[in-house]
Amino acid sequence: MSIFADLLSTVFERRYRGADRATHDTRPINELIADLMGAAGEVSGMAVAKQIIDRYAAMDDTQKLGFFRHLAEAMNISAAAVRESLDVYEQGQTFASYRAFMTAAEPPRQELIRRLNQVHGATHSLVRMRADLLRLGREEDALQALDLDFRHLFASWFNRGFLVLRPISWESPAHILEKIIAYEAVHAIHSWDDLRLRLQPSDRRCFAFFHPAMPDEPLIFVEVALTMGVPGSVQKVLAEDRKVIDGPDANTAVFYSISNCQAGLAGISFGNLLIKQVVADLAAEMPGLTTFVTLSPIPGLSRWMERDDLSADPEDADALRRLAARYLLTAKRPDGMPHDPVARFHLGNGAEVHQVHAGADVSPKGLSQSAGAMVNYLYDLSKLSHNHERFATAGEIAASGELRQLAAASERTHA
Amino acid sequence: MSIFADLLSTVFERRYRGADRATHDTRPINELIADLMGAAGEVSGMAVAKQIIDRYAAMDDTQKLGFFRHLAEAMNISAAAVRESLDVYEQGQTFASYRAFMTAAEPPRQELIRRLNQVHGATHSLVRMRADLLRLGREEDALQALDLDFRHLFASWFNRGFLVLRPISWESPAHILEKIIAYEAVHAIHSWDDLRLRLQPSDRRCFAFFHPAMPDEPLIFVEVALTMGVPGSVQKVLAEDRKVIDGPDANTAVFYSISNCQAGLAGISFGNLLIKQVVADLAAEMPGLTTFVTLSPIPGLSRWMERDDLSADPEDADALRRLAARYLLTAKRPDGMPHDPVARFHLGNGAEVHQVHAGADVSPKGLSQSAGAMVNYLYDLSKLSHNHERFATAGEIAASGELRQLAAASERTHA
Amino acid sequence: MSIFADLLSTVFERRYRGADRATHDTRPINELIADLMGAAGEVSGMAVAKQIIDRYAAMDDTQKLGFFRHLAEAMNISAAAVRESLDVYEQGQTFASYRAFMTAAEPPRQELIRRLNQVHGATHSLVRMRADLLRLGREEDALQALDLDFRHLFASWFNRGFLVLRPISWESPAHILEKIIAYEAVHAIHSWDDLRLRLQPSDRRCFAFFHPAMPDEPLIFVEVALTMGVPGSVQKVLAEDRKVIDGPDANTAVFYSISNCQAGLAGISFGNLLIKQVVADLAAEMPGLTTFVTLSPIPGLSRWMERDDLSADPEDADALRRLAARYLLTAKRPDGMPHDPVARFHLGNGAEVHQVHAGADVSPKGLSQSAGAMVNYLYDLSKLSHNHERFATAGEIAASGELRQLAAASERTHA
Amino acid sequence: MSIFADLLSTVFERRYRGADRATHDTRPINELIADLMGAAGEVSGMAVAKQIIDRYAAMDDTQKLGFFRHLAEAMNISAAAVRESLDVYEQGQTFASYRAFMTAAEPPRQELIRRLNQVHGATHSLVRMRADLLRLGREEDALQALDLDFRHLFASWFNRGFLVLRPISWESPAHILEKIIAYEAVHAIHSWDDLRLRLQPSDRRCFAFFHPAMPDEPLIFVEVALTMGVPGSVQKVLAEDRKVIDGPDANTAVFYSISNCQAGLAGISFGNLLIKQVVADLAAEMPGLTTFVTLSPIPGLSRWMERDDLSADPEDADALRRLAARYLLTAKRPDGMPHDPVARFHLGNGAEVHQVHAGADVSPKGLSQSAGAMVNYLYDLSKLSHNHERFATAGEIAASGELRQLAAASERTHA
Repeated sequence: MSIFADLLSTVFERRYRGADRATHDTRPINELIADLMGAAGEVSGMAVAKQIIDRYAAMDDTQKLGFFRHLAEAMNISAAAVRESLDVYEQGQTFASYRAFMTAAEPPRQELIRRLNQVHGATHSLVRMRADLLRLGREEDALQALDLDFRHLFASWFNRGFLVLRPISWESPAHILEKIIAYEAVHAIHSWDDLRLRLQPSDRRCFAFFHPAMPDEPLIFVEVALTMGVPGSVQKVLAEDRKVIDGPDANTAVFYSISNCQAGLAGISFGNLLIKQVVADLAAEMPGLTTFVTLSPIPGLSRWMERDDLSADPEDADALRRLAARYLLTAKRPDGMPHDPVARFHLGNGAEVHQVHAGADVSPKGLSQSAGAMVNYLYDLSKLSHNHERFATAGEIAASGELRQLAAASERTHA
Repeated sequence: MSIFADLLSTVFERRYRGADRATHDTRPINELIADLMGAAGEVSGMAVAKQIIDRYAAMDDTQKLGFFRHLAEAMNISAAAVRESLDVYEQGQTFASYRAFMTAAEPPRQELIRRLNQVHGATHSLVRMRADLLRLGREEDALQALDLDFRHLFASWFNRGFLVLRPISWESPAHILEKIIAYEAVHAIHSWDDLRLRLQPSDRRCFAFFHPAMPDEPLIFVEVALTMGVPGSVQKVLAEDRKVIDGPDANTAVFYSISNCQAGLAGISFGNLLIKQVVADLAAEMPGLTTFVTLSPIPGLSRWMERDDLSADPEDADALRRLAARYLLTAKRPDGMPHDPVARFHLGNGAEVHQVHAGADVSPKGLSQSAGAMVNYLYDLSKLSHNHERFATAGEIAASGELRQLAAASERTHA
Repeated sequence: MSIFADLLSTVFERRYRGADRATHDTRPINELIADLMGAAGEVSGMAVAKQIIDRYAAMDDTQKLGFFRHLAEAMNISAAAVRESLDVYEQGQTFASYRAFMTAAEPPRQELIRRLNQVHGATHSLVRMRADLLRLGREEDALQALDLDFRHLFASWFNRGFLVLRPISWESPAHILEKIIAYEAVHAIHSWDDLRLRLQPSDRRCFAFFHPAMPDEPLIFVEVALTMGVPGSVQKVLAEDRKVIDGPDANTAVFYSISNCQAGLAGISFGNLLIKQVVADLAAEMPGLTTFVTLSPIPGLSRWMERDDLSADPEDADALRRLAARYLLTAKRPDGMPHDPVARFHLGNGAEVHQVHAGADVSPKGLSQSAGAMVNYLYDLSKLSHNHERFATAGEIAASGELRQLAAASERTHA
Repeated sequence: MSIFADLLSTVFERRYRGADRATHDTRPINELIADLMGAAGEVSGMAVAKQIIDRYAAMDDTQKLGFFRHLAEAMNISAAAVRESLDVYEQGQTFASYRAFMTAAEPPRQELIRRLNQVHGATHSLVRMRADLLRLGREEDALQALDLDFRHLFASWFNRGFLVLRPISWESPAHILEKIIAYEAVHAIHSWDDLRLRLQPSDRRCFAFFHPAMPDEPLIFVEVALTMGVPGSVQKVLAEDRKVIDGPDANTAVFYSISNCQAGLAGISFGNLLIKQVVADLAAEMPGLTTFVTLSPIPGLSRWMERDDLSADPEDADALRRLAARYLLTAKRPDGMPHDPVARFHLGNGAEVHQVHAGADVSPKGLSQSAGAMVNYLYDLSKLSHNHERFATAGEIAASGELRQLAAASERTHA
């Protein structure tokens, strides 16, 4: 049973299954596109749109590139038409002149994408289409411009008000869970038994965002561990022989893994909202929770140390912690933003750098990217807005006193 | 229990209920708007958006006009900026120049509306906001232009792929049913007992479209009677003492009432799709159904007869039927479209004029608008697309042979 | 989400609807019964059971009496067979001898009722059958004995572990709500608007028990008002112009109406469990709630005063309160139980007599049965078990100090 | 949508979770039992019942035996009391004398089991308790008698009218699916990937019965393959490289595996009803299905051949088929029932022996138990009742003409 129990009822499904058996239309795809954009499109559109989507799904990369280039070139705005309508609009800002401008200023391919989306299940097809476009279009300005149209529409369709937060548990449908296994990007899930260990124990939680038009596809999900105190090692958090506590007995919720699921939704940001909603939900459900932190990798630390020719004695945990603090608080990109991508994400959400730990991720990946160091970002709902504003406007990084001292010590000692 | 059982889970609701209690922000609304559009908007946006929506809800019409004018004027496109970006774009169609053009060509108020929509429940608030705008903005070009932006966004949000068809029955939630009573626009429902008569008998069906972000609000609904043969009187269809047949024994489905529910969605067309989906669903559920017709009013008939100084002897049913046929098949607007608005809707959907009846609606309204005449439009799924295309491109009206003969006879006899 | 989201799926329903169309069996009902109890019963039982239930539903009272008498006489235990099996059992308590005794000691009509219950929807039919039996069988020992078998089976089927507590709200299905209107037994609900006033305001709640095999039929429901302080007037509690408070702001939950819905479940007690579960649920949902009381009628007060030739000056509220306290605390039946039936119920649940009020129910019924007096019974979860035990074993009535003083004062003053 | 969409709502669950934390009662279990059966039991029963169930769950087998013996001996009927009440009843069949007899004739342990069942989740605990009893009580008459009481209550609780048929698919909750893997008793499921192959392809179906009080536990399930024609090899049916057909294109539904899930429900028969309901459902969903057969093992064939000193040349498929036909149609137990247990089940359901196949199950188990032979039992809804009756009353076995000929040929040729 689908997670949106009755949203797509059996009858509803059956109808579309019937529609799927429509006779195959052999006209060239550009003709189908013209048909869909034409007069009859409003009524016969569903069938034609279905044909186009099916046809696209069967294409190889070369054909897909051809399809995208057709959209990019033949369905672009006409600068002349925009200028003309703009002239008229400036001469008199009327309903008609504004409408004419709007029409001219929007490339027809946006309407095409909207019309394709009429088909049941098309939203997911279009998200995959954009994933292809991002992969194939990197080198071409026209295709990158086309992507802006996809992104513009997706930002509207995947508006926060339309997203639905759902807990993911061992009672979730298997076809959803196999996607959690597939999409986990931070700490790999190796099997169904492994998955059960992430979901079933009383000190584990998982939440995902869904869109009603893609009820079988998580958009992004976060895995949570409930603990006593702020943990300093992901291996300990995941240890099977840990003492499992009852959720209501925990005082800390640890976000130890956040994974985006849809390559085709790159740049449409949900992570910020997801964490804030999960914090609010958990706080409401378990009043004993007082601290909400991540346990996050520091993916850029080793490279930065290398670049700046810094090193820490593997035996000296404090030295590594000092370096990590200094990196997180002071290493900046040319645009003034933090060097570390994970830091940019959490600081951009209004979190603060809370604690750093050595020996916190002793997996090969953890040792390689950050010499085993990890960091907790603290989500304090009452400070998120303030922190975010200072970060966004002044590049100021919120951090605990301990972190500031560590960073200062590092700069003093050059280690 | 809501019709979208788990879509908005208890926990989900609780969070937002908590949020509702946020401290009241006393700044002027334009300052709140600026705040929402500014740097911190991304993180603190939900709270500010909620403030704006609540503030708007408490406004009187004068204040609402002020709010709309602010959006229309201060948040419009800058023609100069558009021209400038267009120039750059023409000089080099790059990703950056296209993005700059897109940004300039979209008025900031569109982004404002999108950001307002982040709040839980905001979609319905925005639909009501547009209803106000349509009511208050009729005389002002700038407000009508603003409405184009609302409409543009709504067309994207209420994309057909996002709509959900739900049967409405006597087992539906009361808070949905009271809206069916309130919104019925064709044949008024006078009480809950009256409503039960429309829903509970085995020869009655009702279907509505919903949007996942407005699960408690039907967008449009259709009432269906299952009959033996095509009926020629709405009073007989609704008669309490009729012989009630079992659905599967019927051979005809009669759409006797279609009502739009949301004034704020005017111009965002769902009726076309609704009827086609209901035809497909009913056909799948009850293979015995072979005929799908409306039983529709002819709202323009009396006025047209008056204007053309035509009249029919009230005793002569055939004369009235001839006139009705002639009106439906030949009376046109200057743009070539049929004079009758209901005819425009169904013919635009690809239906055909099937039968006309005298004495078919003997209510005061029926006698007044069409001397009691009604018409059946036939929905034949296999012909919809063809009919629609000929209607849309050539203004050709699909009609049964009988109707053509009646219309021809009327023209011959001038009655 | 539970796997029961669509416990009664469309397919499931459709199958049984098909079965309903089975050809009518014209054999005498006693022959059908013999058939159902016979060898083929196990496989063809569903169809035969359906016939019997349909046949019964069409009977008049005389025929029903005939049916019941057949069960009572022809399907009774055989005392001789019981004695014989008992003798064998006493000679050797083996598996076989115990099984033989069990078989002999259970009248075949119990197996008949179980086999009738195989049919989809039969549980409700059997509950209505027992309602008929209770109504028609009052005078006949054999029919009352038959009722003991129904009751025995129902106690097993409507075991507390199988009941489901559901909130009833304005979002509940209309076909459930119309039953709430019909079954309300304490303070009548006059219309759908009246019902909405009981369900929709933020200071109202309603809960019902359901059985999974009768999902469309509430078994018992309770209406709750959330208030500040313990109320002393039902008219004030129900006043439309009261100040409506938000649920979470309330400190008191008032159970002002409890109604049994199924006459055929008389003697199968749910009320006790319902109140305790609702107290537990509300306490968990709204931590601000500290007091759980009823606002209950005192149906036997006027008759008792009349019988004992007591009267209270209508102007003297305190005199009436003293009398009411004395009645509730001291008026007993011959078996030592309180004279007042509502008191017996709540005291039996472990509640205590908390406050009495004059002018509390000024409806004609309230004035007639108790001169307008009402009483609050207090449900203190921590004391229920203790109170119940002392009441059940020693007939001791738990009461507040105030009530004891009032009762004592009444006895002193003889008023 | 049914009111049961959230049968086990969050609030509902939370309450019981709270109750779970009750303080531990250290009294001996027999004292707890006495308490539960005593006066206060009605009100404080839930807590005490919970204690007993928890206490039982922690027992080792010796303690469990002690618990069962206590029920068997101390809570048995008193033959003297039964006799006494029977004497009174015979002297006057009144309501009171019948009630007294009923009370005496039912052992108190039945009421104990009913009271234990009040606790949320207790039904499954009691089913497991009976599984223990069946395992531990085989040798003791008193424990086997006790089991009759469990069985008596379970037959009432698991009445067919209370069971719910649910499709099991790859979209079912993982915690249900892991039980399907665990309980599959015929053709083992080796992994989650293996499970997906049984559920996800368009030519596979699976259905299970559930009881509302044990929503997380399937009671029995059947796996179905949709095929063209009646298959003669289970390996071919399960072959991954088979041509997968669309369900609606199939003409045959093959029940290739039926597994009981609950040892504690032994003897409470569901299989009969399950198959008939699944046949009815599939027929309604896919009108193209005309044949409903099993593909069943013949577990007793090899032993029977050995016993009667029969053998078939492994190269001679026809010889094996003749022997299998003869075995199925003629090998009987002393009581006249078929020797083969699977045959007894399907023939008892009213199915007929349809086809036999050599080389149909070439797994080690298949070769060992039946030299690779399998059989199709045909479920023809229109004949089930007739077949069942003749089988049950006269021991007559329904079989196809082909099967009769094969059996006759075998007897002629003695092979």
